[in-house]
Amino acid sequence: MHIRIINPNSTASMTRQALERALVVKNADTQVSAVNPLDTPLSIEGGADEAMAVPGLLSEIIKGEALGVDAYIIACFDDPGLHAAREVARGPVLGICQAAVQVAMTISRRFSVITTLPRSVPIIEELVSAYGADRHCRKVRSINLPVLSLEESPVEAEALLLREIERSTLEDGAEAVILGCAGMSTLCDRLTEVSGVPVIDGVTAAMKLAEALVVAGYTTSKVNSYNYPREKSAGCVVCA
Amino acid sequence: MHIRIINPNSTASMTRQALERALVVKNADTQVSAVNPLDTPLSIEGGADEAMAVPGLLSEIIKGEALGVDAYIIACFDDPGLHAAREVARGPVLGICQAAVQVAMTISRRFSVITTLPRSVPIIEELVSAYGADRHCRKVRSINLPVLSLEESPVEAEALLLREIERSTLEDGAEAVILGCAGMSTLCDRLTEVSGVPVIDGVTAAMKLAEALVVAGYTTSKVNSYNYPREKSAGCVVCA
Amino acid sequence: MHIRIINPNSTASMTRQALERALVVKNADTQVSAVNPLDTPLSIEGGADEAMAVPGLLSEIIKGEALGVDAYIIACFDDPGLHAAREVARGPVLGICQAAVQVAMTISRRFSVITTLPRSVPIIEELVSAYGADRHCRKVRSINLPVLSLEESPVEAEALLLREIERSTLEDGAEAVILGCAGMSTLCDRLTEVSGVPVIDGVTAAMKLAEALVVAGYTTSKVNSYNYPREKSAGCVVCA
Amino acid sequence: MHIRIINPNSTASMTRQALERALVVKNADTQVSAVNPLDTPLSIEGGADEAMAVPGLLSEIIKGEALGVDAYIIACFDDPGLHAAREVARGPVLGICQAAVQVAMTISRRFSVITTLPRSVPIIEELVSAYGADRHCRKVRSINLPVLSLEESPVEAEALLLREIERSTLEDGAEAVILGCAGMSTLCDRLTEVSGVPVIDGVTAAMKLAEALVVAGYTTSKVNSYNYPREKSAGCVVCA
Amino acid sequence: MHIRIINPNSTASMTRQALERALVVKNADTQVSAVNPLDTPLSIEGGADEAMAVPGLLSEIIKGEALGVDAYIIACFDDPGLHAAREVARGPVLGICQAAVQVAMTISRRFSVITTLPRSVPIIEELVSAYGADRHCRKVRSINLPVLSLEESPVEAEALLLREIERSTLEDGAEAVILGCAGMSTLCDRLTEVSGVPVIDGVTAAMKLAEALVVAGYTTSKVNSYNYPREKSAGCVVCA
Amino acid sequence: MHIRIINPNSTASMTRQALERALVVKNADTQVSAVNPLDTPLSIEGGADEAMAVPGLLSEIIKGEALGVDAYIIACFDDPGLHAAREVARGPVLGICQAAVQVAMTISRRFSVITTLPRSVPIIEELVSAYGADRHCRKVRSINLPVLSLEESPVEAEALLLREIERSTLEDGAEAVILGCAGMSTLCDRLTEVSGVPVIDGVTAAMKLAEALVVAGYTTSKVNSYNYPREKSAGCVVCA
Repeated sequence: MHIRIINPNSTASMTRQALERALVVKNADTQVSAVNPLDTPLSIEGGADEAMAVPGLLSEIIKGEALGVDAYIIACFDDPGLHAAREVARGPVLGICQAAVQVAMTISRRFSVITTLPRSVPIIEELVSAYGADRHCRKVRSINLPVLSLEESPVEAEALLLREIERSTLEDGAEAVILGCAGMSTLCDRLTEVSGVPVIDGVTAAMKLAEALVVAGYTTSKVNSYNYPREKSAGCVVCA
Repeated sequence: MHIRIINPNSTASMTRQALERALVVKNADTQVSAVNPLDTPLSIEGGADEAMAVPGLLSEIIKGEALGVDAYIIACFDDPGLHAAREVARGPVLGICQAAVQVAMTISRRFSVITTLPRSVPIIEELVSAYGADRHCRKVRSINLPVLSLEESPVEAEALLLREIERSTLEDGAEAVILGCAGMSTLCDRLTEVSGVPVIDGVTAAMKLAEALVVAGYTTSKVNSYNYPREKSAGCVVCA
Repeated sequence: MHIRIINPNSTASMTRQALERALVVKNADTQVSAVNPLDTPLSIEGGADEAMAVPGLLSEIIKGEALGVDAYIIACFDDPGLHAAREVARGPVLGICQAAVQVAMTISRRFSVITTLPRSVPIIEELVSAYGADRHCRKVRSINLPVLSLEESPVEAEALLLREIERSTLEDGAEAVILGCAGMSTLCDRLTEVSGVPVIDGVTAAMKLAEALVVAGYTTSKVNSYNYPREKSAGCVVCA
Repeated sequence: MHIRIINPNSTASMTRQALERALVVKNADTQVSAVNPLDTPLSIEGGADEAMAVPGLLSEIIKGEALGVDAYIIACFDDPGLHAAREVARGPVLGICQAAVQVAMTISRRFSVITTLPRSVPIIEELVSAYGADRHCRKVRSINLPVLSLEESPVEAEALLLREIERSTLEDGAEAVILGCAGMSTLCDRLTEVSGVPVIDGVTAAMKLAEALVVAGYTTSKVNSYNYPREKSAGCVVCA
Repeated sequence: MHIRIINPNSTASMTRQALERALVVKNADTQVSAVNPLDTPLSIEGGADEAMAVPGLLSEIIKGEALGVDAYIIACFDDPGLHAAREVARGPVLGICQAAVQVAMTISRRFSVITTLPRSVPIIEELVSAYGADRHCRKVRSINLPVLSLEESPVEAEALLLREIERSTLEDGAEAVILGCAGMSTLCDRLTEVSGVPVIDGVTAAMKLAEALVVAGYTTSKVNSYNYPREKSAGCVVCA
Repeated sequence: MHIRIINPNSTASMTRQALERALVVKNADTQVSAVNPLDTPLSIEGGADEAMAVPGLLSEIIKGEALGVDAYIIACFDDPGLHAAREVARGPVLGICQAAVQVAMTISRRFSVITTLPRSVPIIEELVSAYGADRHCRKVRSINLPVLSLEESPVEAEALLLREIERSTLEDGAEAVILGCAGMSTLCDRLTEVSGVPVIDGVTAAMKLAEALVVAGYTTSKVNSYNYPREKSAGCVVCA
């Protein structure tokens, strides 16, 4: 089984970080690869960044289809291009936000999400709602730190995350916490240990759910809305 | 006041059609222009088509900002890139789906939407829900005709639309009907007349709401999520 | 085009204030008039006040219909009698709450509302929900000042509003603020300027949307629930 | 204990019918009276009829308060003026729609409502939703018969109701049916018997819930939104 | 009329307390009995406690059916086994949470709930939502005191409840408060008096609604989901 | 890794069928066991059957905990006792309904569920809603066949299922179908093949998700509501 992680931004160190996390949790016989487009924003912080990243992301899926990739993970917590990607891929496509929400709904009754910048809060609220967790999600919080600062100031990031995890349990009544950025993946184990609260990382969640779906034989439904894009006489960009 | 219509697909005849409709309903002192990217899908039929169209759409907004455009209309009923476009623009950005839904909620209590292909039905359902019309919208219907066939087979298209309008009132209890594709704009007056039901066209709705917002002095809030994209040291695509 | 503003309470100074605001934002060729019933409560502060104001409001619409008025604005933030008024009028009827909500949903992702008395908070919450903005509206706040004190103590009112606007952004994450009372209309520009947050006034919003709908040719749907009241053999009050 | 039924329309025969039904189900020591305003529409068929009936309804409550009435029932299925009435009354005020919905949610998991005219369907849908029964209510149906025809054509009315009850179980999966008009009260027992489905009448439901609340000592909360209308220096209509 | 209160836990003093409360509010000609299973948890604090209590609860209903009991009240605020009980009983089965919520929605627009332990908060939130009061319920609060401590430390319990009632009005804007545990029943009158806020006790509410339903002739619908359990060739536990 | 399937009913052939399905899809190094209580109903058809099955189910989990079981699957589509089980178990507990819904939301945008008896339809609707799939689930359908007849009349069952799958796509616009009974597990592959629609079986889904969660190191949150049941001085049933 070949699972491909696509980091939609063009910061290679984040791609590597996601891959490292996936290698830790993957099954022995799973092949994992991780790629990122070269011409997308350095980080995804809002809807415009998302939009500029999606065509490159879809190109990576088309390449993956040629290679026989079995499932894809979009390693950005905004799940950019998730529905589009599912139209282009044969196998399952996992968003790390949706995967983390599904895990959180299984191991707790109430959770909070902690992301980087305040501007992403409404975006994530909409996603959480679309994934059916309106009632389960107590609050989407932010540490007010840009994505790239997670790598540059890891100590500060961890301290800020711990403070918000504490607030999540005390003020929100959260029973689990989701890390709302792929760049926080490597922190999840330590945060769980220190805080005593289950801390869910989307890359981990998506990696395991992807393997689960592939072994079970589930592929993306091609009945109606996730069917392959229709070919037009010209101007067809992703269906060629 | 300068309002720019952006047709996100690359079919120039659809761009012209939207412009013609806008010219009919605009105020005397409003300047309207209409553009389309050259490298996007010929029609938007699903999420992948949407995704491939948005970067070109954002480029057109960046060009418009340099020209001092006061408001933008995205002339595709899926409202592709709407939130991203609002981050990039100073003035209001109207989606024709959202505009049509707002009009329908003002002149009726219950409405149905009629679109082209069945694969767009779930996409439009999600939009209608995001715009707060879950209860007001009885049903999203389709005539099972590709977008480009609206121009190629106008007689068939009109007949199919009339049949679905009739079903909307009889089966759904709809009190108004929204045309779920920019390519249906020019049909709305005749369909209203023949059916006796208010038929709402999104281009018309968005054009008038855009003028309304501009005269009232409303611009897109730059407080938090619709703020301009953050500049990164490199890789910044739309903020340069 | 003739647009009539109906202030449902009987405080003429509030009627004049709404008219003044409308005159500032109207199109050059729009005729605006403003009226109020003489026998309704001096201010609308709760459901009973609303109920006592609506028959007088409907009478004004019936008079307006005889004059050929093209659209009506109900200048009270509780939108009293909105659905009833739409049954009686041929053209569109705008509520200032619904209009403000539609503007807020177009120029921001999250907003708060600031009204006068706490007793109106649940009423406005229900309206906001009915207009589909449950998720977009962060909070309905109040300054705990009676409606008529807005005119009597304008300095205090403005200070209280500024404080709540600040709380809306800091505590609620609001990206825009709606003024929840027609009597606050004249303050909106200064509040926007001072706070740096888009402050939306319902009279302004409704005035511009009314013009937009009339030019576009939209009238209230007479299919089903907004149809004219049925005439009964006797006792028919508004249909005669 | 004195419970007063207020029929908000001015058709005395409907008032008598509601009283008769209440007399059948009341406790031995409950005093019931029934009144109707004299200057309201002959029947309530839509929002304008409702609006014209509410001031007369509130006057009846003010008269009742002077007499020491313990609870009120608004005997019209649209629950017109319910919130306003609660502001004016000390004791509980029951709407027959809300009462019927509460009973239906207690004795079944899924129900349908059958009303008179199609124009009332969206109104009742909004009420059912406001009372929290969105998921429990399968469908609001109509027999397309004006309210006053229920008395004039009782045989036809009963046949139409039976047909819709049957459809409710077969097509909707309804487990109970609510009669959506006060004028259908006297039919409920026979319809239950003939159809084998629990048929709920709002007058019955409201009568028994009113007695229940009064004995339990519950009165309308005067904390915040149901507090008595504020007195203004002049123009106070219902608070005098 | 015979109404049976079933306390699903096995603490007899709590059963007596519920009975005493019911005796205070019942109609003169109503017979009330109260029972509890002997082999269930001493208190219900979470889902596992609930689950272990339900078979004993259903046994009590089966015994009650043999005696001709007319209606049942499940005297635990989590409404454990409510739907199951309705399948087994002919007459209505009232949950004290659902009953309290229905009363709160009738006498106020916004309420809060105060329960014992934080672990019950999500359970009660789900119930409140299932009963349609998502919007009406401001907050589910807890005093962080185990159920059995209500009897052991009544002074402390009352002080904690008063503090949370005050917070409910000040912070939540609650207009009424529901006591979220059967063990708080006897406190409701004094808490109402001291706080000035209507305080609703579920045992009281359920007792009066049960009488109301029985007199009105309503029984549990046996059409579809509340029908008696199907008999199987063997292993039938409650239908024998 | 040891995963235990608990069939809450006492029909051993259904336990074997679930085990067989699990053996087909499990990872090589996963140990699977399947048990059922001996004193529970032969099949779960409604809430009372559920309630009678849960204590036996919890006992099996307590036994499993002593053995070091890593995760549990409740092999009944009503997910009986799911929340209670999570309080008792250290590792994750999967319900086959929740697992199937999560898979369906990942590989399609719209799905329908097909269950056995109509009486289970509202129960499943509530579950689907609790799992956040209100909008994704088009319809819960039934084939009107008792659970035990799935084994007795497999040919009829398959034909009925195929007919409902066809209706799901044609009438509901479903893009995937969930089999709403553990007893249908072995049919899923053939139904997928014959219908061309992805057919999701909950046992398969839960088995794979359970493995995924265990490898990722996720256990049930013991913060707040899923914490172990509190020990009482006596009467403690599951915590001993």
